[in-house]
Amino acid sequence: MSLLTVGTVAFDAIETPFGKTDKIVGGAATYIAWSASYFSKKVNIVSVIGDDFDMNELEALKARGVDTTGIEIKSGKKSFFWSGKYHLDMNTRDTLITDLNVLLEFNPVVPDAYKQSDILLLGNIDPALQIKVIEQLTSKPKLIVLDTMNFWMTDPFIETLKKVIGMVDVLTVNDAEARQLTNEYSLVKAAKKILQMGPQYLVIKKGEHGALLFHEKEVFFAPALPLEDVFDPTGAGDTFAGGFCGYLDKTRDISFENMKRAIIYGSAMASFCVEKFGTERLRTLSHKEIEDRVKDFIDLVQFDIVLED
Amino acid sequence: MSLLTVGTVAFDAIETPFGKTDKIVGGAATYIAWSASYFSKKVNIVSVIGDDFDMNELEALKARGVDTTGIEIKSGKKSFFWSGKYHLDMNTRDTLITDLNVLLEFNPVVPDAYKQSDILLLGNIDPALQIKVIEQLTSKPKLIVLDTMNFWMTDPFIETLKKVIGMVDVLTVNDAEARQLTNEYSLVKAAKKILQMGPQYLVIKKGEHGALLFHEKEVFFAPALPLEDVFDPTGAGDTFAGGFCGYLDKTRDISFENMKRAIIYGSAMASFCVEKFGTERLRTLSHKEIEDRVKDFIDLVQFDIVLED
Repeated sequence: MSLLTVGTVAFDAIETPFGKTDKIVGGAATYIAWSASYFSKKVNIVSVIGDDFDMNELEALKARGVDTTGIEIKSGKKSFFWSGKYHLDMNTRDTLITDLNVLLEFNPVVPDAYKQSDILLLGNIDPALQIKVIEQLTSKPKLIVLDTMNFWMTDPFIETLKKVIGMVDVLTVNDAEARQLTNEYSLVKAAKKILQMGPQYLVIKKGEHGALLFHEKEVFFAPALPLEDVFDPTGAGDTFAGGFCGYLDKTRDISFENMKRAIIYGSAMASFCVEKFGTERLRTLSHKEIEDRVKDFIDLVQFDIVLED
Repeated sequence: MSLLTVGTVAFDAIETPFGKTDKIVGGAATYIAWSASYFSKKVNIVSVIGDDFDMNELEALKARGVDTTGIEIKSGKKSFFWSGKYHLDMNTRDTLITDLNVLLEFNPVVPDAYKQSDILLLGNIDPALQIKVIEQLTSKPKLIVLDTMNFWMTDPFIETLKKVIGMVDVLTVNDAEARQLTNEYSLVKAAKKILQMGPQYLVIKKGEHGALLFHEKEVFFAPALPLEDVFDPTGAGDTFAGGFCGYLDKTRDISFENMKRAIIYGSAMASFCVEKFGTERLRTLSHKEIEDRVKDFIDLVQFDIVLED
């Protein structure tokens, strides 16, 4: 199978209570690709960068089997840059700088070789661009997964976001975003409303509190691993989505039962992501490290009750 | 086996976004007893009430096999009264009235018949009183469980609280309290510190986000059931503790593996508690309803991953 993702490939400068970075490589598609590369044999990226980008970064992705030919390089332009500072609780952050740069004129072009990808993961980006990507595909993907954020849930973007939500199979948002999108505080009620907007599956990410998967009348809960320290949460949601889709692509099974497994693998990948700044921890993982981490998740929630009835 | 609990038996007046009550029966020991009565054949209460209390309430507990002879009735005095109002998120509340009344002169006396109880559950109350109860027992319980709250984590109570923490096997607190007690934001670090203060087991209750059980280097996570509505959270923590201890008492097994099961049963009981005002939902449960609810918890976290290594 093959996985196509669209999203930002960018520079980030991050400050946390544990330290700060200069410009390092970030962006939704970057985290997605690193994470998915541990599962999917074919990860295709559609994105845009300026010629200030470090081309060794693209080589590093290629070395992991990621196809970067869909990353447009705009000469004389600068890559998207985001800078943020996390608060002590690591759950909230202030954006210090957002330089859209090449994103201002991004018009995603899906290479012919990508047009029959099996899974499409729409990384967090303007929903109008997400629709453009869907419309360029020549065969309907087996699964379309949409990641988005609160920024697109306000005017003038919300109507376009609702349109793309109506075109996808799986939506992933965090708990605050699920509430904002539906005006419902109860996540169960919010999930019911979102499942009526189009998607058959909804993943609600709750950060350190785990993730919920809703489908029809079923619900699955995946815990987050209790960690001594969260070093840098940047990209954890993208890494989750990349692991989730990469696992589904590798296993060629988009059933609810397999999505549960995919959420555990996605959560495991996110738990690595937050251990170091940026994508650092995602660059050196071994198959055994991932399997050991998944075993930690199994042990965390494993209990054995024999019901009397 | 038998379970002894000490705590308040009281009146509450509760206001939530869904409605408000007049004075209804509440108090930690009340919730604990109702919850534990579904598991433990012998629940003994040490508490104090005024003669304004509705004696039919004690009869209702007796009808469930609860021994109320340890509830001292002070004639001419009023029962403890608490009134609170929950905010829209149901996670935070304002205390409107706290009338200590009979609690001001409460000097717990453990009846001889209770002095060899197998499990002692110290409900949330002044830690000095909790110590008095421990000291009256003639044989060491198989398990002492301590529930407490942030109020006792400040001067002049904190030193006495630390003393009682050093005398128990299991401590149950919520996440904010674990942080306050240790000055650690990371719950993993907080748990390490608390396990060095005496208890072999620590339960951190995270409300709608579930509960964590720490023991030596092991950790277990129990989810909370995603509910459409939380109608009234009052007493959910006490109900959890009552179900937890009642299950351990019924099954005569205080191993880590069985504590995991006990946490699921405690969580199931708490999920009933919040469905109606006060103890209402805890009064009419059937064995089948409890088993069905536990099955919901099993289904919620059940996944099947075969590791490759």
